[in-house]
Amino acid sequence: MTPHPFSIKLDQTSVVPLNEQLTKALQEEIRHRLQPDDRLPASRILAECLGISRNTVTAAYKRLVDEGWCDARVGSGTCVAEHLPLRERRDPRTGRPPIETAGLPELSERAQLALCAAQFHVQTEEPLAVAAPDYDSLPGKKWTQIVARISKSPWMHNSYCHPGGWGPFRRVLADHLRSARGISCDPEQIIITSGIQQGLALCAQILFNPGDAVAHEDPGFEVHRSTLRYWGLRPAPVPVDAEGLCVEQLSAFPEVRGVLVTPSHQYPLGMLMSRQRREALIRWASAHKAWIIEDDYDNELSYAGLPTTALAAIAEIQSSVVYLGSFSKMIYPGFGLGYLVAPKSAAKAFEGAKLLSDRHESEVHQTILTEFISGGFYDAHVRRLKVLYAKRRNAAIRAIGRFLGDIGHLTIDNQGTHLCFCFEKALDDVHLADYLRREHRLETRALSPCFADAPKEYGLILGFAGFSEVQLENAVEELSRGIRSFLRTSN
Amino acid sequence: MTPHPFSIKLDQTSVVPLNEQLTKALQEEIRHRLQPDDRLPASRILAECLGISRNTVTAAYKRLVDEGWCDARVGSGTCVAEHLPLRERRDPRTGRPPIETAGLPELSERAQLALCAAQFHVQTEEPLAVAAPDYDSLPGKKWTQIVARISKSPWMHNSYCHPGGWGPFRRVLADHLRSARGISCDPEQIIITSGIQQGLALCAQILFNPGDAVAHEDPGFEVHRSTLRYWGLRPAPVPVDAEGLCVEQLSAFPEVRGVLVTPSHQYPLGMLMSRQRREALIRWASAHKAWIIEDDYDNELSYAGLPTTALAAIAEIQSSVVYLGSFSKMIYPGFGLGYLVAPKSAAKAFEGAKLLSDRHESEVHQTILTEFISGGFYDAHVRRLKVLYAKRRNAAIRAIGRFLGDIGHLTIDNQGTHLCFCFEKALDDVHLADYLRREHRLETRALSPCFADAPKEYGLILGFAGFSEVQLENAVEELSRGIRSFLRTSN
Repeated sequence: MTPHPFSIKLDQTSVVPLNEQLTKALQEEIRHRLQPDDRLPASRILAECLGISRNTVTAAYKRLVDEGWCDARVGSGTCVAEHLPLRERRDPRTGRPPIETAGLPELSERAQLALCAAQFHVQTEEPLAVAAPDYDSLPGKKWTQIVARISKSPWMHNSYCHPGGWGPFRRVLADHLRSARGISCDPEQIIITSGIQQGLALCAQILFNPGDAVAHEDPGFEVHRSTLRYWGLRPAPVPVDAEGLCVEQLSAFPEVRGVLVTPSHQYPLGMLMSRQRREALIRWASAHKAWIIEDDYDNELSYAGLPTTALAAIAEIQSSVVYLGSFSKMIYPGFGLGYLVAPKSAAKAFEGAKLLSDRHESEVHQTILTEFISGGFYDAHVRRLKVLYAKRRNAAIRAIGRFLGDIGHLTIDNQGTHLCFCFEKALDDVHLADYLRREHRLETRALSPCFADAPKEYGLILGFAGFSEVQLENAVEELSRGIRSFLRTSN
Repeated sequence: MTPHPFSIKLDQTSVVPLNEQLTKALQEEIRHRLQPDDRLPASRILAECLGISRNTVTAAYKRLVDEGWCDARVGSGTCVAEHLPLRERRDPRTGRPPIETAGLPELSERAQLALCAAQFHVQTEEPLAVAAPDYDSLPGKKWTQIVARISKSPWMHNSYCHPGGWGPFRRVLADHLRSARGISCDPEQIIITSGIQQGLALCAQILFNPGDAVAHEDPGFEVHRSTLRYWGLRPAPVPVDAEGLCVEQLSAFPEVRGVLVTPSHQYPLGMLMSRQRREALIRWASAHKAWIIEDDYDNELSYAGLPTTALAAIAEIQSSVVYLGSFSKMIYPGFGLGYLVAPKSAAKAFEGAKLLSDRHESEVHQTILTEFISGGFYDAHVRRLKVLYAKRRNAAIRAIGRFLGDIGHLTIDNQGTHLCFCFEKALDDVHLADYLRREHRLETRALSPCFADAPKEYGLILGFAGFSEVQLENAVEELSRGIRSFLRTSN
């Protein structure tokens, strides 16, 4: 059977090329009207029928053959294929069975760890969410001006970027780190990342071999613990006290090859690592030839004067410190840009790791931040936010004292965008946080999962940066209602 | 010695908080004028001298103690520390030695592979660079309108994004993939990545265990080979011929657990994988319970009618195919956004891997593309680019025939943004490409490093998409001069 004229309609005025239109139309014919082995009309004839060039028909036929819709048979032209492309196999008309599959391939062992990590709850922007920055002052007029201007000439930065980062951005960041954090480094030591998380992943890959033990603060950010495990490392939990990581307890893990710390603002409890501990940590790292990974996630938001000196600012030991920084707290997390400062000896390896991980960060974003920082707008932005957030923080603290003072207390801190509220009694904070989310539209994070093994404290991590003083007061009042009704229900 | 009045000047009108100003000023005093054990004035006295609140002085003193500049001694107030913060140790005045370091910690074994990869040359935008997209039509007026508008309300998308991607973007992409590539998938199967490279890295982590052999096309993209090795896998090179990967040669590696292919446009040679080979590959994967990683890096730029059907479009075997897509060729590489389509059974694990790798992609960028695609602008953009690039491609082919026809030939392809020119004779194309870059300001890539072992071909990979027809003609003429002068010099 050679069915024609086809019911093919081509649109000569369409922007869709004719051979594209024709190929699609022929596929429709094959799918719905033709049988295997049916012969398509000779290209010359179809071209005449449709009033188009023969080349167009030839191109469409060739494509049908390449894609398996048709066979080109010597002597008999183009015929509908005996076996239609596999995705057509389910066609009820033909009823042919699919290719036998011997079962699914298996995922890696690591996939199981990824699967667990995927359960991590990403907060919405309901009150008390930790990461939400301020909506009104962020990102500010200067910011949108720069973004809008750069978006009009993106071809200036549209090619593949150097894996380490865009040169001018790395230079501006080196200057910024020198004045803001006392860190002396060459631009080549800075690797532009998508944020702290990628920085940590790159450290896990470049600094350690699979099976190595890496110490971390207990409690700490649970995703970071999963990260170490995902990259084949053994997390070694070390307790913290009011002065930060209990360095002397590192001796419980003599084989540890590195340590991950948040010295400026311990996550989640909030304290500052004391000078004595910092020196002890550096001595320990030096004696054990171990790496220090300094997670400085909210370094600029210090409410008690200048930010503390970074570990990485201590020149003599820079060789063992990898410093992780981020713009998530100061610009916004959705922007997704951060950096790491590697020791000189390791910078090139980090560059390669970035190339092999995801090639490079968006150069457009780097351009935007370069202008924002070098124009002085970033520093002004930081000062503005510190004033704003300090007020909000105070409002949150006042409200917590008023509404929740009888059932718990805040841990001591003076930095960042969140507070940590600890309950006086053990309490199922994981279910509480779920309940608050569901029934009271409040986004809190449970404290107990931050502990590696048995939790020593129960509480809630509360973000204040993204909400006005009035919102915070209302949210804390609602939180008090929520907690009390949860306590009643669970008793 | 209690030196005062200090030469401290505070600016009450400055936006810098007074305690910040004071802390800085005191650090200057300590650095330049005071000696260890010198006592700072009582806070009440200094406050009176400077006309500021005593709390401000107390806060500054506390910070100096926390940071190690001073010691708080019971009975004698605040004194300059015996040991200044470590970064001050090099102060020529004190001449104290730094903490003894026992030597550098070691990098991981993997770091060596990263170091090699870091040598990969990132092209500048000189003529014949492969990735540079068109500067005039890209990204177009609609694009800049959308970006500018979204940049004015980024607080709509400023929080942490779901690691798998922004919901509306995943839905729009699922629709797009259905109509453009015949791929039927749920939005939840799509993981937003920064591009093909991250997609491959995630596959390497989630699909395979360290030590697994993974087949790849030989020649292929050298960075991808390094990527497999970096993630602990054993790359198994399989030759290609005019029909693509020689599937029957996979039997040389019976233990292979997966295969990485570029079926729509083999990189670097350019051919389309034939239907027979596609079916054979699918049968092989099914029989061996192996994964297929489909790298579809430039799928939309097909110049001979419709793009070919994706392997991932074949519903019955979707369970073993992971599809990697990118917007680098259609939007621009600096934008840095791509995606992967995972089998349903693996999607959650990929989500977790993304979380543990770099948490999420920029939600702002996802928002921009969502509007661009769902508004129909993306399809129009693709059609416009195809017309433009087809002309440029023809111009490049003509010029190559005219100026280089006597020393080599182009490989057969009909897609994408680059051409592959092979020399008739063996030739040191790596040094040639360096020479062309240095002496003729031409960005070409050598073909021979694409081969896993001994190169079977020598040539140059030439990008045409980013240059006008006149530029291309001139560049190819310059290329001809460059190659001939290189040949003379090297003989």
